[in-house]
Amino acid sequence: MNYRMILYLLGWVLNIQSVCLMLPVVVGVFYGEAQWKAYAVVAAVSLVFGVLLTLKKPKRNVFFVREGFVTVALAWLGLSLDGAVPFVLTGEIPSYIDALFEMASGYSTTGASILTNVEALSHCALFWRSFSHWIGGMGVLVFLIAIVPLTGGHIMSLMKAESPGPSVEKLVPRVRQTAVILYSIYISLTILEAMLLLAGGMPWFDSITTAFGTAGTGGFSIRNASIGYYNSYYLQGVVTVFMFLFGTNFSIYYLLLAKKPKQALKSEELRWYLGILTVAIAVITWNIYKIHYPGRLFDAFHNAAFAVGTVMSTTGFAISDFNEWPQVSRYLLFILMFCGAMAGSTGGGMKVSRLILLIKRSLQEILSLVHPRGVNLVKLDKKKVSDDVVKSTVSYFILLMLLYVFSVFLISFDEFDMTTSLTAVAATINNIGPGLGLVGPRGNYSMFSPLSKIVLIFDMLAGRLELFPILVLFAPQTWKGGLNVIKRRFLWSKKSM
Amino acid sequence: MNYRMILYLLGWVLNIQSVCLMLPVVVGVFYGEAQWKAYAVVAAVSLVFGVLLTLKKPKRNVFFVREGFVTVALAWLGLSLDGAVPFVLTGEIPSYIDALFEMASGYSTTGASILTNVEALSHCALFWRSFSHWIGGMGVLVFLIAIVPLTGGHIMSLMKAESPGPSVEKLVPRVRQTAVILYSIYISLTILEAMLLLAGGMPWFDSITTAFGTAGTGGFSIRNASIGYYNSYYLQGVVTVFMFLFGTNFSIYYLLLAKKPKQALKSEELRWYLGILTVAIAVITWNIYKIHYPGRLFDAFHNAAFAVGTVMSTTGFAISDFNEWPQVSRYLLFILMFCGAMAGSTGGGMKVSRLILLIKRSLQEILSLVHPRGVNLVKLDKKKVSDDVVKSTVSYFILLMLLYVFSVFLISFDEFDMTTSLTAVAATINNIGPGLGLVGPRGNYSMFSPLSKIVLIFDMLAGRLELFPILVLFAPQTWKGGLNVIKRRFLWSKKSM
Repeated sequence: MNYRMILYLLGWVLNIQSVCLMLPVVVGVFYGEAQWKAYAVVAAVSLVFGVLLTLKKPKRNVFFVREGFVTVALAWLGLSLDGAVPFVLTGEIPSYIDALFEMASGYSTTGASILTNVEALSHCALFWRSFSHWIGGMGVLVFLIAIVPLTGGHIMSLMKAESPGPSVEKLVPRVRQTAVILYSIYISLTILEAMLLLAGGMPWFDSITTAFGTAGTGGFSIRNASIGYYNSYYLQGVVTVFMFLFGTNFSIYYLLLAKKPKQALKSEELRWYLGILTVAIAVITWNIYKIHYPGRLFDAFHNAAFAVGTVMSTTGFAISDFNEWPQVSRYLLFILMFCGAMAGSTGGGMKVSRLILLIKRSLQEILSLVHPRGVNLVKLDKKKVSDDVVKSTVSYFILLMLLYVFSVFLISFDEFDMTTSLTAVAATINNIGPGLGLVGPRGNYSMFSPLSKIVLIFDMLAGRLELFPILVLFAPQTWKGGLNVIKRRFLWSKKSM
Repeated sequence: MNYRMILYLLGWVLNIQSVCLMLPVVVGVFYGEAQWKAYAVVAAVSLVFGVLLTLKKPKRNVFFVREGFVTVALAWLGLSLDGAVPFVLTGEIPSYIDALFEMASGYSTTGASILTNVEALSHCALFWRSFSHWIGGMGVLVFLIAIVPLTGGHIMSLMKAESPGPSVEKLVPRVRQTAVILYSIYISLTILEAMLLLAGGMPWFDSITTAFGTAGTGGFSIRNASIGYYNSYYLQGVVTVFMFLFGTNFSIYYLLLAKKPKQALKSEELRWYLGILTVAIAVITWNIYKIHYPGRLFDAFHNAAFAVGTVMSTTGFAISDFNEWPQVSRYLLFILMFCGAMAGSTGGGMKVSRLILLIKRSLQEILSLVHPRGVNLVKLDKKKVSDDVVKSTVSYFILLMLLYVFSVFLISFDEFDMTTSLTAVAATINNIGPGLGLVGPRGNYSMFSPLSKIVLIFDMLAGRLELFPILVLFAPQTWKGGLNVIKRRFLWSKKSM
């Protein structure tokens, strides 16, 4: 393990964090709120540590998959641990575990909150929460560009699976150029949404924070009633559309910009994504129309589209309490939590492309029993998917299920009802935010025990980084070498050399 | 497809069914119940069709995996369709869908019932229900011996995965000998249990039907309170022990009989099985002790052991309403439903060996990220598991999850609560019987709509035959050739020749 390089990179993460923390300082000063001082203190301390770690660039720049994964995992963990401090210093979230939950939820773009009344928060706290979503969404793009290519054949191929057809690294050969393109799309879409919201009469502070929350597919809102506060078809409609847009593979936009609409529309994942969301909206509209919106078909459609958008894109905003809807809608939303958005987007969950691969692979197994001598290939966009990609997709799915099942077991010690436990983990591990039952759109995560909150924090970060980085970070084998180094240095054990 | 051979074999299944149907006839005559006539009529009609189909042995005995799978699937479906008729003729279960549900539940050794008062049934009906479990359990053994070897390398290897260490087909080279050994163990254990129950003061009719229900890991009881009716630690204890015994890989008994106890205890699957059930019993005992059995630790242990036994062995008997237990116990039982018993037993569910393979395979994926150049093998009983075995285990798991998720969606249209829907499918697809909520040990499946009942019937049969046979039966590709034959014969279409 290249420890120096990892620390050097984490130093840069701290430097960036201290710059980001200056924004809530500005917001606080602007609104004349005393809380800005806490953000300034944390920014200063972060900068000191950041600068110390980045003073000297390590000479050895050998960097393997595990180093990349460990760095990413530590970066997300560090950002959350560090970014949670201002909440405690200002006393707006007195418990550190709660503050950490809120911040991990922010950076992982989950949007699950332990707050019962967000409207009581200062502007700088509200800004910081929403801004962490936007940084988190950006971070995921960094992860896709900077770390994934390091992994060589193995995860690189997973990446190919995730952005089928014109995959990100194939679009433009060089990493920097890809980064510029992705960030341009991300920033442009954010500005466009904020302007459309402003044009619809939403206050500027609300517009910016809502755009941050949508762009990162986060879901923190500055209102207790979330987007339901803005009682306007236009404003809610804009948010709905942008939730779907941010859940779309960014390479689709690149192809559209490059005037290759045919190639963009050929993407099998895009077709499935559109197909699933159309069917889901239709079923839910039909299901809630009679009971909840009698005679108001458009309202039923509007609410169904928002709910499907918020769950599939893994954003987590709400305009109505889908927890009170009929069972079919509730269950469908529960399942869509796992499905998630498209690969190569800022959305979380399993991703549509993984779902396609898993279904195709299983159908192939049945076909191979019918025609034992047939050639069985899993194809995506008419191209054979490599065995490695299929293998890591399968591993991802099994690990997700194991982690899900075990997490629900751990939080079930809090003795909340089955629906609450099952959907609380589903909504955090897939980075949505609200679930059903006590954690529904009208509820929050405040009632969980500290142990359960730690489990859910772990799930939010693990889910956001697609499991492997966090699991590698906690695998004892990763640190074996490090332990030997410590042993050699401090215990003078010659045997282990 | 060798249609003649399939029909010939199904003819033999009907012949066996008609012989089996004579047993409830005898029971009915013995108790002076008029219902025996219905069983006699169905037995006679089954025999006529059976004899007609088996008059001429087909010359072509080429038989591939798909033929084997289709035959097995049709046999279970046919037995259920045919065996349900007496219930309708006697009027004891007037609706045919309900009768079919009950019979599919019987043959699939599930034990889920649509009856609200089993004690109102005639002795012949009660006997027939319980006996179907015993035939079903035997049928699974036939399936393991006769069909699985047909599948050649592909499923054969799945079989190897299922009976790790000394696998069934390795124990004794010849199929007939294996069959004799398995059946001897099955019958001996059944007789032993019935005698132990008789010795404890259970009436002989109750002893036999309970032994049938335990042996097939079925779960139909002739009492409304299930095994809770027999208010005796001894009787309930005997049932608990035998549930665990019938959930154990039968090759373990063979090794014990062959005086190779060391080899038997080396089985990794056995260790995991014992480990899981020990931990589960301990957690549940601790969890229910304070609230439900204050000051009565043995009672807490007794009830926990029974519940874990009934769920892990996928039997489905009950002595207490675990639906009312705390969330931790309820959730743990829900998860154990999927875990299931050991491979090579009469139990259902995923099987412990599959779980081991899935966990090991996923951990290997993490290790391969830490040490990219390490050699990664999945080992069981210190032997490398072939890639084909791992592959079909993974496919099985993905298909199980897909079928589970989709089935819950279909039955959620009945608008029962989430817990009921989730556990109703879990308890049928894994062949347990009772779930939680409305389908808990005190409830039943009568309130579901006919559509939901059909979905659950499909799940019971699919789960019992480990998915592939039923899925192959319903795969359009299986029947492509057959459609062409029909076209050629009846539509004189020259083109398709």
